[in-house]
Amino acid sequence: MTKDAREKWEQGALAKVLKRFPERQEQFLTDSGIPVERIYTPEDLEGWDYLTELGFPGEYPFTRGVQPTMYRGRLWTMRQYAGFGTAQETNERFRFLLDQGQTGLSAAFDLPTQIGYDSEHDLAEGEVGRVGVAIDSLEDMEVVFDGIPLDKVSTSMTINAPASILLAMYQAVGEKQGVAPGKLNGTVQNDILKEYVARGTYIFPPEPSMRLVTDVFEYCSSTIPSWNTISISGYHIREAGSTAAQEIAFTIANGIAYVQAAIDKGLDVDVFAGRLSFFFNSHVNFFEEIAKFRAARRIWARIMKERFKAKNPKSYRLRFHTQTAGSSLTAQQPDNNIVRTAMQALAAVLGGTQSLHTNSKDEALALPTEESVRIALRTQQVIAYESGVADTIDPLAGSYFIEKITDEIESKALSYIKKIDDMGGAVRAIENGFMQREIQDSAYRYQKAVESKEKTVVGVNCFEIEEEQPKNLLRVNPAIGEAQKKRLRILKSRRDERAVASALKNIETTARGQNNLLPPIFEAVKSYASIGEICNVLRDVFGVYRPGQEI
Amino acid sequence: MTKDAREKWEQGALAKVLKRFPERQEQFLTDSGIPVERIYTPEDLEGWDYLTELGFPGEYPFTRGVQPTMYRGRLWTMRQYAGFGTAQETNERFRFLLDQGQTGLSAAFDLPTQIGYDSEHDLAEGEVGRVGVAIDSLEDMEVVFDGIPLDKVSTSMTINAPASILLAMYQAVGEKQGVAPGKLNGTVQNDILKEYVARGTYIFPPEPSMRLVTDVFEYCSSTIPSWNTISISGYHIREAGSTAAQEIAFTIANGIAYVQAAIDKGLDVDVFAGRLSFFFNSHVNFFEEIAKFRAARRIWARIMKERFKAKNPKSYRLRFHTQTAGSSLTAQQPDNNIVRTAMQALAAVLGGTQSLHTNSKDEALALPTEESVRIALRTQQVIAYESGVADTIDPLAGSYFIEKITDEIESKALSYIKKIDDMGGAVRAIENGFMQREIQDSAYRYQKAVESKEKTVVGVNCFEIEEEQPKNLLRVNPAIGEAQKKRLRILKSRRDERAVASALKNIETTARGQNNLLPPIFEAVKSYASIGEICNVLRDVFGVYRPGQEI
Repeated sequence: MTKDAREKWEQGALAKVLKRFPERQEQFLTDSGIPVERIYTPEDLEGWDYLTELGFPGEYPFTRGVQPTMYRGRLWTMRQYAGFGTAQETNERFRFLLDQGQTGLSAAFDLPTQIGYDSEHDLAEGEVGRVGVAIDSLEDMEVVFDGIPLDKVSTSMTINAPASILLAMYQAVGEKQGVAPGKLNGTVQNDILKEYVARGTYIFPPEPSMRLVTDVFEYCSSTIPSWNTISISGYHIREAGSTAAQEIAFTIANGIAYVQAAIDKGLDVDVFAGRLSFFFNSHVNFFEEIAKFRAARRIWARIMKERFKAKNPKSYRLRFHTQTAGSSLTAQQPDNNIVRTAMQALAAVLGGTQSLHTNSKDEALALPTEESVRIALRTQQVIAYESGVADTIDPLAGSYFIEKITDEIESKALSYIKKIDDMGGAVRAIENGFMQREIQDSAYRYQKAVESKEKTVVGVNCFEIEEEQPKNLLRVNPAIGEAQKKRLRILKSRRDERAVASALKNIETTARGQNNLLPPIFEAVKSYASIGEICNVLRDVFGVYRPGQEI
Repeated sequence: MTKDAREKWEQGALAKVLKRFPERQEQFLTDSGIPVERIYTPEDLEGWDYLTELGFPGEYPFTRGVQPTMYRGRLWTMRQYAGFGTAQETNERFRFLLDQGQTGLSAAFDLPTQIGYDSEHDLAEGEVGRVGVAIDSLEDMEVVFDGIPLDKVSTSMTINAPASILLAMYQAVGEKQGVAPGKLNGTVQNDILKEYVARGTYIFPPEPSMRLVTDVFEYCSSTIPSWNTISISGYHIREAGSTAAQEIAFTIANGIAYVQAAIDKGLDVDVFAGRLSFFFNSHVNFFEEIAKFRAARRIWARIMKERFKAKNPKSYRLRFHTQTAGSSLTAQQPDNNIVRTAMQALAAVLGGTQSLHTNSKDEALALPTEESVRIALRTQQVIAYESGVADTIDPLAGSYFIEKITDEIESKALSYIKKIDDMGGAVRAIENGFMQREIQDSAYRYQKAVESKEKTVVGVNCFEIEEEQPKNLLRVNPAIGEAQKKRLRILKSRRDERAVASALKNIETTARGQNNLLPPIFEAVKSYASIGEICNVLRDVFGVYRPGQEI
C-alpha cells in the first residue's frame, strides 16, 4: 500500500521538483556515515517487531529506558563536572552549584592527582590545580566536601588509575561525617582501558590495572553496595575523534573486557554487573545521538543476557552519564556554544540519560566562570522544567527514522564488537592499535571535511566575524602549587609516621598477593598517607606503563 | 500482543516501582491541556492509517510538509524581524543581518505607521521609531531598502490596516530599482481579524477592512503574483495567552473568513488561495508545538479541499512563518533565553516551517542589540548547518507519541472551528467576544499556574538569583521624532502638491465605489503622499473602529 503510493509520489510530485531544484547535497550522512534518506515511512520498519526491539521501559531489552517511570519518576541528575585550584576553591564551587539547583556532584582532579603524584613532585610543576582540584591526601578531600553531607548527594569522581585511593578517601570522609558506607552514592570513573585508547592518564601496565578495577567491583559489592564501581567511558573516545558508532562499540567492547576479567577473578556476574555504569558523549548530529543511546542500551542488555548469562535484570541495564561534546565547542563566538550545548543536552535527555553535564560556553577558552557554569546548568533546568520533554518516556519511539537509525547504528556497533572479539577482545584491540587507528581515521576524515567546508562549523569555517579577545576568563592562580606543597609538608610533620609506614607496608604485601587492595588502601588514606606515597608503593610492585610499550 | 505485554509490565515492573516511588505529578498535561501519558506504543495508533493521516511531503494532506524535498532542497528562510528608529538605522540593521547570513528580511514598523498616522501626528508623540521603523512616505521606504536589490531578497512586512499602502510603496521602490512587480517576493501581514482579537492595531471597521484585505488578494493575483498576500497570524493570539490548540483553531477560523470573503467578492479560490500564508508561534512545550504545526497543515488542506472545493493542490498548502515565543522570554537571567529560543526554533524546524525568526535574548528588556540578534541568527545556523535535523523530512513521523498528540491537537482545534462556524464564523466569534474570552481564560489559568509554582519558569519562580541591571541595552534616540517631522515637512515643501491632491482624490472616489483600491494607492505613494494623508482619506470614507464598538 505505502509502496505503491511512495512510487507514485516519487515519479510524480517529487520527480517534478527534483528536475527543477536539485537537493542541497547528493548524499546526506550521519556522523557515523549512515545514509540519511529523504523520507522514512512504515516500509522502513517492515518486519520490525515492537516487543523484540523496544519492549517497555525498565524491561528487557531496555531500549526505551532503564526505569519503568524514567523522568516522570525522577529527573536525571544534573551533575556539572567541576573542580580547580585548591580544595577550598573547589568546595566553594560545589556549594555554588548545589545552591543553583544542581542535584549531584562531579569532581575534576588535576593531572598530578590523576597520575598519582603529589603536588611536590617535579612532574606536577605548573599543573597543580590547573584542570581540576589538587588532592594530596585525605586532608584535601575533607575540605572539598566540607559542609556537604555525603548521605545527601551523589558524587562522581573522574579518576582512573588511582580510583581505589580516591574512593577510599571518600569513604573515609563519610566515616568522619558519620555516614555509613552503605549510604554513599556516586561513581568512580575507574575505566583504565579508555586511558590507553584515548585519554592517557594511566600509571600501571594493563594487568595490575585490571586487577585494581575488579578489586573495586568486589570491594563495593560488599562494602559500598550503592556505589557505581566504574563508568565505562565512551566520552573521551568520542572527543578523540571517533564516530558515534565507534564510541558505543569501543566502550561496550571495553565493558565486555571488564566483565570477563571480573568473572575470571571468580566474581558472580550478577553480584557486580548491576553497579557498572557508562559515560557517553552527546554530540552535534541530533538524531544520531538519540539513536546511539537507545542502541547502546539494547546492545548491552543482549550481551549481558545472552553472552554472560546474567540472570538479574539489573545486570542488563546500561545506565549512563552524558556530557555534551567539548570538542564541538568553538573559541569563536562562544555564545553559540550555548545553542550547541542545549541541542546536545536535549538529545541526551531524549536518549534517556541518567545524569548530565552541560558544557559551559567558555570551556573552549578556559575554566568556566560561575556565570557560564550557571547558564549551562540553567540549560538543563529549562529542558527539565519548562519544555515538557520529560513528561513521557522515550517520546520518539516508533518514529520510522529514529527506529531505522537505531537499528543501523546498532548494527555498525555490533560489527565492530565482532571484529574486536575476533582479535581476542578489547585489550588486544588496544594493544594492536586497532581502536586508536579507527579513531584517528575518523578524526582525520572529520578534519578534512571541515577544511574543505563539506562540513560547516558556524563561526569557524562559515559566518566568521572579527572578534575581540573575550574577557572575564577564569585562570587558576599559579601560586597555588607552592601553597599546596607547603600544606603537604605541614601535614607530613603532624601525622603519625609509624602508622603511615605500616599502612604502606600492608599495601605492598597485599599488592604482591591476591587479596583485595581496597582494605589496606582505606587504612592508609586514614593515616593521611599521600596519594603519591600510595602510588609509589604500587609502582614498585606493579611497574609503570610507558606509551608504545606492549600492553 | 502489545496489549498483553503492556498489562504484564504495568502489573509487574511498573507497579513495583510506583509503589515505592510515586511520579513527580499526578497528571502531566501539554499547554493545551492534552494529557501526556507515561508511554505511547503501537496500541495508540491502532486504526490509524499512514496514507490518510500523513501521506508524502508535498502531497495531500501535507502533514509531512508542503514541499516534496523540504529542507533537503532548500533550508527555511532565516528571517529576523527588525526595524527601529529612522529608515537609515533600519537600512543599516538590514544590511548587517544580510551580512551575517540572514536569507530574508522582515520589517517592523513603528506604531504610528501601523495605525496610519504620520510622525507629526499628536498620537505619534514618543512613539516615532520606537517599536519599528518610522515610515511617513515612499521617501522613507527608499532609504530602508537602499542598496538592497528587491529581486534578490524576500521581505515580510508586519503591517495590517495600511498593508495595501506599504505594499504599494514596496512595489514603487522596486520600480525605481528597475525590478518588475512579477519579480517581487515577500509577504504583507494584512491580517486584520487578529488585530481585533489580540493585537489592537486596526484603523477601520471590519467591513471595509475585509475589503482592503481582499483587494490585496485580487491585485496581487494579477500584478505581483509571487507575493504572499496575507500572513494569517496565530502568533499574537498565542502571545496574548492562548493555548497551542486555540492558536491554530482561531487562526484557521480567521483564514476561513478571508477565503469566504474573497469568494463572496467573486474571486476564484484557486486564483488566490495559493498565495495565502500563515504565521505561528513556537512556544515552550516542545513536542506539542511540533504536533501543532503538523496538525495545522492537515486541517487546512482538508478545509480547502472539502469545504472550499479548491482544485489546485497549491491551494491546500498551509505555508507558514514562525517566530519563537516572545512571551516565554524572561527579563531575569536573559542568557537563559538563548536556550529557550534554541528549543523553540528546533520545534519549528521539526514542524516544517517555511521561515523563522528567532528572538534575541534581550527582547524582554529592550530592542535587540547587534550582538544579541547575531546570537539569535546563529541559533538558526547551528540548527541548519550543524545538527543534521534538516537532512530528512519530518523526522518524527511515526512516533507513537507525536502522531497521537498531532491527532489530539487537531481534534481540539476542529471542535473550536466547529463552534465558531456555529456562531456564524470568525467575525461573529470576535464580535461576541468568544475568541477573546477563551484566550483570556487560558492566559489567566497560565498566570495562576506560574504564581502557584505548578508551572516552573526558570529564573522567575524558581532558581532565582540576585542580578544587576543589564548593560548594553539598545534604546532608540528620542530625538528622532523631531528629525522625522522635519524630514516630512521638507518633503511636503518639495513634492508636486497638485499631483498629491489628485491622487488622494482618486483614492476617495475608488473607496466610495467597488473598484480595487490598490491602483490609486500605488499612484498616490509615487506622488509622495504620506501614509497619514492616504489613511485620512480612507478614514473619511470608511470611518474608524473604536474598541467595544460592534464589529
